[in-house]
Amino acid sequence: MGLVVQKYGGSSVADAEGIKRVAKRIVEAKKNGNQVVVVVSAMGDTTDELIDLAEQVSPMPAGREFDMLLTAGERISMALLAMAIKNLGHEAQSFTGSQAGVITDSVHNKARIIDVTPGRIRTALDEGNIAIVAGFQGVSADKKDITTLGRGGSDTTAVALAAALDAEVCEIYTDVDGVFTADPRVVKKAKKIDWISFEDMLELASSGSKVLLHRCVEYARRYNIPIHVRSSFSGLQGTWVSSEPIGDKKVEQAIISGVAHDTSEAKVTVVGVPDKPGEAAVIFRAIADAEINIDMVVQNVSAASTGLTDISFTLPKTEGRKAIDALEKAKVGIGFDSLRYDDQIGKISLVGAGMKTNPGVTAAFFEALSDAGVNIELISTSEIRISVVTRADDVPDAVRAVHSAFGLDSDSDEAVVYGGTGR
Amino acid sequence: MGLVVQKYGGSSVADAEGIKRVAKRIVEAKKNGNQVVVVVSAMGDTTDELIDLAEQVSPMPAGREFDMLLTAGERISMALLAMAIKNLGHEAQSFTGSQAGVITDSVHNKARIIDVTPGRIRTALDEGNIAIVAGFQGVSADKKDITTLGRGGSDTTAVALAAALDAEVCEIYTDVDGVFTADPRVVKKAKKIDWISFEDMLELASSGSKVLLHRCVEYARRYNIPIHVRSSFSGLQGTWVSSEPIGDKKVEQAIISGVAHDTSEAKVTVVGVPDKPGEAAVIFRAIADAEINIDMVVQNVSAASTGLTDISFTLPKTEGRKAIDALEKAKVGIGFDSLRYDDQIGKISLVGAGMKTNPGVTAAFFEALSDAGVNIELISTSEIRISVVTRADDVPDAVRAVHSAFGLDSDSDEAVVYGGTGR
Repeated sequence: MGLVVQKYGGSSVADAEGIKRVAKRIVEAKKNGNQVVVVVSAMGDTTDELIDLAEQVSPMPAGREFDMLLTAGERISMALLAMAIKNLGHEAQSFTGSQAGVITDSVHNKARIIDVTPGRIRTALDEGNIAIVAGFQGVSADKKDITTLGRGGSDTTAVALAAALDAEVCEIYTDVDGVFTADPRVVKKAKKIDWISFEDMLELASSGSKVLLHRCVEYARRYNIPIHVRSSFSGLQGTWVSSEPIGDKKVEQAIISGVAHDTSEAKVTVVGVPDKPGEAAVIFRAIADAEINIDMVVQNVSAASTGLTDISFTLPKTEGRKAIDALEKAKVGIGFDSLRYDDQIGKISLVGAGMKTNPGVTAAFFEALSDAGVNIELISTSEIRISVVTRADDVPDAVRAVHSAFGLDSDSDEAVVYGGTGR
Repeated sequence: MGLVVQKYGGSSVADAEGIKRVAKRIVEAKKNGNQVVVVVSAMGDTTDELIDLAEQVSPMPAGREFDMLLTAGERISMALLAMAIKNLGHEAQSFTGSQAGVITDSVHNKARIIDVTPGRIRTALDEGNIAIVAGFQGVSADKKDITTLGRGGSDTTAVALAAALDAEVCEIYTDVDGVFTADPRVVKKAKKIDWISFEDMLELASSGSKVLLHRCVEYARRYNIPIHVRSSFSGLQGTWVSSEPIGDKKVEQAIISGVAHDTSEAKVTVVGVPDKPGEAAVIFRAIADAEINIDMVVQNVSAASTGLTDISFTLPKTEGRKAIDALEKAKVGIGFDSLRYDDQIGKISLVGAGMKTNPGVTAAFFEALSDAGVNIELISTSEIRISVVTRADDVPDAVRAVHSAFGLDSDSDEAVVYGGTGR
């Protein structure tokens, strides 16, 4: 008998009908001979409504009490889901993050899982129950306070439980059919990806693909838990994310997995920085001390005449104000001329393990952008990814041009799948 | 420094404004030099909305998962209340029933508190926090499952915590000014009672007064915790419930504390029961086995000619169907002629410790009913209470007549307060 962890997002359990539909699907998995653990998010807009209430009573709700509040959302959905399953004649028990043994650090609102001790889940399964677990939440190791895992936390709960229970697969049910070669809202010809490696999925996730978050994929890779991303509304196979193609699937690794884009970032340019050792360190220490995560960093070649250079970096728009403040405060220590802030940028990324051994990829990428008339402002590369920053307005055209150039369009005769290259 | 437990019901925290108003009142108590523990119910209609959701996914939601669902309500209100208090510049931490050490038995949906171990509350108070505790909920001793305490459970949580923490007083905040000599909706001249003994309050509670539930008063009496019932909307003194009048209050015990009424009961009459030993036992064993609580029981004098008698009892209307079914099933064993079911009855009760030593009370009570033209169907008495069953339609007139006859009307010159009679 296999053990399956299924995770259902808020849109899948948005109302009583959704909960009943999901309950049927869960019972199917049980009838197929599996032990089933289900991780569930809060229903539809519940979390937003709770946040709205919190803002009405306090202008800056945060910390311990905010976590206590938000975790009510999953408590509601998981209890209802257990009831709906029992109504179908199967035994089910729901468990809070704390009851399920999801132990975290004490960083409220974005806690990290440090251990999973699923003794009660194991017992419930052995007694024939379907176990329903609240996503997104845990309990802190030191103070025994309720914590939440931050954005996308339910996916992480699911993968962490799958790892702790040695599950065969972690199924992430969502409102799309899987991971696509590009955002289907931008690229109509985007194709569903049948299988993608952890590494390529990590790059897509950190380049703007919203289906799975980086943290969840990273966790799955570390414990080698295959993820199956699929729709809770259809019965279709979705996208498998794993180290190697699963079972009898003879899926070959494509050169290019997909094109991701991101328009949630802004660009900060520090102008007129003395070109001497240690300057970048001072700048990025100021940013790090303000707890701001940055993405791309580019330093221009310094002008020989002045001995000054410019350093640009990108970061989430929401962190823009904080970054500018931090740099202004550190201005004397750094000694730059001025700051420029630009939130009208977009990032386009091409991801694929195959590009390591296909030297023409970079050139083809830039040619596609050039043909589409897109100007490139910054470039950043990893072994299996090329990213460029452009004007935000250029992003849709750029994504379509690149998607098409690499033969990813669904009706294209040029779609080429190469064999894996030694990975 | 004193320790005060305050309890706020759902109507006091119905929305963000209510929560902010309550937060101010709590902070006042803290500023007055008290350690403050607050027990809070779910906001306004939250519980009803959750029950409605449950019924949408399952026709008979109950048990463990229903408790898991309902306890989300207090989680929301207590977290918001803690945030609102922090926003006023005071430290507050919220605790679930489990975290607060409210240990119960395993009877889901109507668990009983078997122990309170408020170690975390004590620590939070010692660190200068206001402690906010979820009412109505606990954790079962054996399985560590979340339980709820049933109707009025938050009041019981408050009194139980007050006892465990050796509080000076348990303040029950509600949407009325206190306990009245009769239901003010029926008797316009009803007066607020300044002080009432535990015993009289217990009789009022079991006779239909809704302000405090029997279980909560019983708990307070057992641990001798003074209760102060008052409005969260006004700053007025409410009603003190305690063994003796508190502090410098020279309140004297009235002969009569108040008149309570109840139209939620029905009457079952078992007609033609053989008048021999053991018959009543068989009838009430059948009722008890169906887990039905009954209230008044009356057996008529048997007719000498037939050797048969009638036995009547009252019970909640909601249990009527179950009682009839149970008796029909036991008919052969009991050997009665027929059953009569009447749900158009009402009960009027006169409560007061003074009646023990004032023999005229019973007579005056029946005279008042007679003068009002009210026919009496059943009579039941205790040492400090007389109850009669009448037609439901007669209840308002009967209550007003009795209230007036005993000088309880607020503008009456005849209002007489006697000294305590040795209690």
